[in-house]
Amino acid sequence: MKEWALAKVYQLLEPGPVVLLTTARNGRANVMTMSWHMMVEFEPPLVACVVSGNDYSYAALRATKECVVAIPAAHLAQKIVDIGNCSGRDVAKFEKVGLTPLPAECVRAPLIAECFANLECRVVNSRLVNKYNLFVLEVLKAWTDPKQRNPKTIHHHGYGKFVVDGEMIKLKSRMR
Amino acid sequence: MKEWALAKVYQLLEPGPVVLLTTARNGRANVMTMSWHMMVEFEPPLVACVVSGNDYSYAALRATKECVVAIPAAHLAQKIVDIGNCSGRDVAKFEKVGLTPLPAECVRAPLIAECFANLECRVVNSRLVNKYNLFVLEVLKAWTDPKQRNPKTIHHHGYGKFVVDGEMIKLKSRMR
Repeated sequence: MKEWALAKVYQLLEPGPVVLLTTARNGRANVMTMSWHMMVEFEPPLVACVVSGNDYSYAALRATKECVVAIPAAHLAQKIVDIGNCSGRDVAKFEKVGLTPLPAECVRAPLIAECFANLECRVVNSRLVNKYNLFVLEVLKAWTDPKQRNPKTIHHHGYGKFVVDGEMIKLKSRMR
Repeated sequence: MKEWALAKVYQLLEPGPVVLLTTARNGRANVMTMSWHMMVEFEPPLVACVVSGNDYSYAALRATKECVVAIPAAHLAQKIVDIGNCSGRDVAKFEKVGLTPLPAECVRAPLIAECFANLECRVVNSRLVNKYNLFVLEVLKAWTDPKQRNPKTIHHHGYGKFVVDGEMIKLKSRMR
């Protein structure tokens, strides 16, 4: 065993699917790239995520307590990176990057037409926001695009390196 | 767009790398399989995770406030599932499954020799434990096995289905 730099630990643990988080405030939609999220409960589905105070989406999420978590497949990788490389402070990201907002049903934040799944969410717990920027969301409504079958997601390993989903294996498991 | 069952939302969002969590209490080591975890801060690295009150590891984690997060590569998939299919209440899992505990440096929970990375962790925040079983950990020390080069991890999609890491792509990104 050899010591691993603490600063690079996140590159080991982070690799869940990269998602996009949309918000809307004062009629203006925004979208950011996010890899720091996890499930907290099966049903109703609760999701924790970290949105940095440096992100323009942070203030909108705090104020509106609503967002959409949209899951893009690998063919959107370039757009995912483009979204991460600019700020909603400076540009209208949907137009700039070329993504299509769709109206959601329960929240004002938009769905993203190009993503294979969209989850409408409400912030249900903010106790760790001041300390860690950690929001707990409840998924109110979930959508998938039936035309995108077996989509492959991407997993961020830091600095623009992404692993694309490979083969699926099946083992006998009692775990849900 | 077609509605997606709320109960299956976790199958969309969960797929981070499957990890193993070890604990030690009263001289007895245990290990569980875990997919609900995310990074919270780069440095010092903070990690949030959900450990259910039904898991035998839960009481040990609460009492000792120490654990190791060990990351297995895909060749350990069968052992990962075997660990999830039994409880430390009934069996000594390391022996049963055939994994090798190694002494850690900062915590009493063991490293796992067969894993390509091991993170020694201390619980630093328990405010959401009662409500969500959500622990915030600080990684005190991290280890990797230099003999395991470019390990492929697995990502749980529910009920024993796992996606194995595929190809790595690189895009020009300003994101850390």
